[in-house]
Amino acid sequence: MTNPTAAMLVIGDEILSGRTRDANMFHLAGELSKRGIDLNEVRIVSDDRDAIIAAVTALSQAYDNVFTSGGIGPTHDDITADCIAAAFGASIDVRDDARAILAEHYAQTGAELNEARLRMARIPDGATLIDNPVSKAPGFTLNNVHVMAGVPSVFQAMVATVLPLITGGQPLLSQTLRVDRGEGEIAAPLSALAEDYADLSIGCYPFQKNGAFGANIVVRGTDGARVESAVAALAHKLGLA
Amino acid sequence: MTNPTAAMLVIGDEILSGRTRDANMFHLAGELSKRGIDLNEVRIVSDDRDAIIAAVTALSQAYDNVFTSGGIGPTHDDITADCIAAAFGASIDVRDDARAILAEHYAQTGAELNEARLRMARIPDGATLIDNPVSKAPGFTLNNVHVMAGVPSVFQAMVATVLPLITGGQPLLSQTLRVDRGEGEIAAPLSALAEDYADLSIGCYPFQKNGAFGANIVVRGTDGARVESAVAALAHKLGLA
Repeated sequence: MTNPTAAMLVIGDEILSGRTRDANMFHLAGELSKRGIDLNEVRIVSDDRDAIIAAVTALSQAYDNVFTSGGIGPTHDDITADCIAAAFGASIDVRDDARAILAEHYAQTGAELNEARLRMARIPDGATLIDNPVSKAPGFTLNNVHVMAGVPSVFQAMVATVLPLITGGQPLLSQTLRVDRGEGEIAAPLSALAEDYADLSIGCYPFQKNGAFGANIVVRGTDGARVESAVAALAHKLGLA
Repeated sequence: MTNPTAAMLVIGDEILSGRTRDANMFHLAGELSKRGIDLNEVRIVSDDRDAIIAAVTALSQAYDNVFTSGGIGPTHDDITADCIAAAFGASIDVRDDARAILAEHYAQTGAELNEARLRMARIPDGATLIDNPVSKAPGFTLNNVHVMAGVPSVFQAMVATVLPLITGGQPLLSQTLRVDRGEGEIAAPLSALAEDYADLSIGCYPFQKNGAFGANIVVRGTDGARVESAVAALAHKLGLA
């Protein structure tokens, strides 16, 4: 059995311009990993209609699930919902169910449900709303694409809503062996190990600390006993156990 | 005059698995912004030959410059150099100039230039080496693709080497206006501003702090006087000045 696959599409000039350091990708990657869904690709594009449509089309065809982040607020640069609708040829307008959520929220807060805020009720036909416990304006799922906000607290709340509804797989287990030698010293035994344990993913992540080289070797797989066995075999090969 | 364009390709299971939070993208985005090179797209793919070749091919055709990060070390999962060569139909083998750099380095440190380490001298024909002052094993530039290491200290050193060799543009200037109101309150004046200043990029980045909503409005452009004028006009519209 192979795990379901996923991709993420981050929509946001603020990351491409170097203004903001990504937080949502890191959060989603960790959550997907826990649920046994393989995140295979991430793309970050600017707030550009053609770029968003091209990316969501390519990713939704290639992977089981696509998660987007950003561009669903009330301002002129929030064009994600319309782009997703266009990508699937769905019509889009202010939808009654989304409008009702906003109307109730703004009635409580005393703010006006003006034209800009109504933009946040633009939801493609056929989409299912994603609850937003933080600031109410909903995300939505259309086909295999889950459209969520870019503000990290809202993004995280939406991920928590959506993930239980998606078929998961075998959670990925990992063990890390830290080796205080340069990669060049351990590459040969590591390569032999990767052949012996072809069912596992074995990565080597070098680091440099106080001028000395080392590497974290991360063994990942869905079978805990196999992961354990590979780490033990490696420690033995390297004379660490 | 439009600025040169760029894309980044991050090669690394460690980011997709949620193990590591990206640092190189954030660094590169900031450096490109300073030099007037527009970072238009980022893709992150796993250590998979087909995925790397497809991504580098697409990005190198679409943008003026492509920067890659990761997968050029000595271990079995370091396949970037071979994939870049394949993407351009270039042949690749251990190259004398790169081997000489490694030989000198390992002679000094007393470590052996073994078969694994020699993998780091595999450089495509026609590529120019990128100096690595940190750990010696070079990156390379082939056509419009700059291939760099994933270890942040090495990546940053290579970026510092490569960027002065690339044609820059007008550095992107930005000013931020913080507004302590929800996006829905400011969307209409912001939209009007974006029409009046169509030559600038105006982004609205909402935040939530202690239960209150606010937004940072970021005005970006290459003409400092225009950026200044747009921010002043906006502050006036919003009654802040």
